[in-house]
Amino acid sequence: MSDGNKSAQAQRLAERAAQALCANDTTSRHLGIRLVEIRPGYARMAMLVRADMVNGHHICHGGMVFTLADTAFAYSCNSYNDNTVAATASIDFLAPAHEGDELTAVATELWRTRRNGIYEITVTNQRDERIALFRGRSYRIDGQLVSVE
Amino acid sequence: MSDGNKSAQAQRLAERAAQALCANDTTSRHLGIRLVEIRPGYARMAMLVRADMVNGHHICHGGMVFTLADTAFAYSCNSYNDNTVAATASIDFLAPAHEGDELTAVATELWRTRRNGIYEITVTNQRDERIALFRGRSYRIDGQLVSVE
Amino acid sequence: MSDGNKSAQAQRLAERAAQALCANDTTSRHLGIRLVEIRPGYARMAMLVRADMVNGHHICHGGMVFTLADTAFAYSCNSYNDNTVAATASIDFLAPAHEGDELTAVATELWRTRRNGIYEITVTNQRDERIALFRGRSYRIDGQLVSVE
Amino acid sequence: MSDGNKSAQAQRLAERAAQALCANDTTSRHLGIRLVEIRPGYARMAMLVRADMVNGHHICHGGMVFTLADTAFAYSCNSYNDNTVAATASIDFLAPAHEGDELTAVATELWRTRRNGIYEITVTNQRDERIALFRGRSYRIDGQLVSVE
Repeated sequence: MSDGNKSAQAQRLAERAAQALCANDTTSRHLGIRLVEIRPGYARMAMLVRADMVNGHHICHGGMVFTLADTAFAYSCNSYNDNTVAATASIDFLAPAHEGDELTAVATELWRTRRNGIYEITVTNQRDERIALFRGRSYRIDGQLVSVE
Repeated sequence: MSDGNKSAQAQRLAERAAQALCANDTTSRHLGIRLVEIRPGYARMAMLVRADMVNGHHICHGGMVFTLADTAFAYSCNSYNDNTVAATASIDFLAPAHEGDELTAVATELWRTRRNGIYEITVTNQRDERIALFRGRSYRIDGQLVSVE
Repeated sequence: MSDGNKSAQAQRLAERAAQALCANDTTSRHLGIRLVEIRPGYARMAMLVRADMVNGHHICHGGMVFTLADTAFAYSCNSYNDNTVAATASIDFLAPAHEGDELTAVATELWRTRRNGIYEITVTNQRDERIALFRGRSYRIDGQLVSVE
Repeated sequence: MSDGNKSAQAQRLAERAAQALCANDTTSRHLGIRLVEIRPGYARMAMLVRADMVNGHHICHGGMVFTLADTAFAYSCNSYNDNTVAATASIDFLAPAHEGDELTAVATELWRTRRNGIYEITVTNQRDERIALFRGRSYRIDGQLVSVE
């Protein structure tokens, strides 16, 4: 198989794995998180900060920013079709997000071995200002998301 | 004022600050997060894992576990009535939570200076099994939650 | 075998594993790090802050505080005689240490599975003031430190 | 003053601040850590893994890798001539380093406000393989490193 074919196959697998995740991901659906772009080791997702995502300080709840970033993390580290879960994650909150803001989370792969991976997720708003930096460590468990012929 | 009076006053302030946070915290309300106990530097909160909190692997979304822990963190670090926000947080996922699980997050204060604090939050399920360990670093900003006579 | 015998055997193994680590740990020796107490999942170590451990701000170099904590982490997570290494670690610097301070690092086990572990290390000075909080995630690799009959 | 002059002045200040740090940094000197390049918000440092930097598993002690990264962190976040210390740091160990390896740490600035900063440090070996990823959060304290006319 040529490199081009391999790459197309990896992309197709990433898309199918993302679809499988989406089908069961009721959390993301309820929060209105949308998958914008998926590639092997990469995911871009978006979320509108709704009135029900605000906390006691009148700003977007840190848990909602984390959930968006964590979802992008999940889609990127599962893009090889191996069932993969978060082992640990850390987040730095750089600036507050507000109701009505459109947030985007971009997940890129920093490192990956057979079982472990490290992913970097940056959350920005509609003015391209950085809201949060997220780093997650993933762990591959048994099984795959979709069956491969 | 006696130590006992001071302590009662601090407790009263923690309760009023928690009420003020609750009043505006639409995220927690929508997720069914309940404040169980509040003390200066301490908060205990509970959340039932609902069907809309599950992810693509059929387990509770990491973002929902984080949100519960982060909320307990917020209530504990705001219990002195000074407006305080999260600067950074990290979470270790120890075991999956499932739909129907009743999760409890207990936040305790590890360290506090005038502006900065470190809080440890442990999330357990109804069988007292640990689901996640969360550590947050808080940063005091200007203002107070409720006015003090 | 009785519980008492098992416990004595686990303690004996922890001591032998620690001796094996010590024998090769030239870093700790050069820094004057001493093992004070070892138990399964637990280690206490001490270090005097020497003139050659100071940084450009005239305080103990963060790397030296980390190294003491990381060493206690290593001894505690290797105390079951399975070769175990650090996957990730984080440290919060609470207060500066100075030349002449006697630092103590106490490592306790928060969680452990067959392959992974989380350890908490607290570094204090001779006045029992906390200097740093360290959390490490360990990963078991192949092999053992000492042979068991 | 023109942008070019400002930039040259910032570079000159970064170099003077680095010299001031070097003059007192006995830890780095004893470990043979060398400053290779300094710019505002950026530092590159190198260290040879010596026989006295090895741990009980015959690999470079994690504390030594951390110390190299933490030193690059210190030089980069002090490059504006404001006294700045580490508040918290985390490190992911990706691959072991061995005696004789030449390690390089490159520190870049991810984010900076008046008081706080976040820096990313990557440690590689002589084959450009990544050994560790380090992220540090800095906190500006009072005072400056060198006097400015």
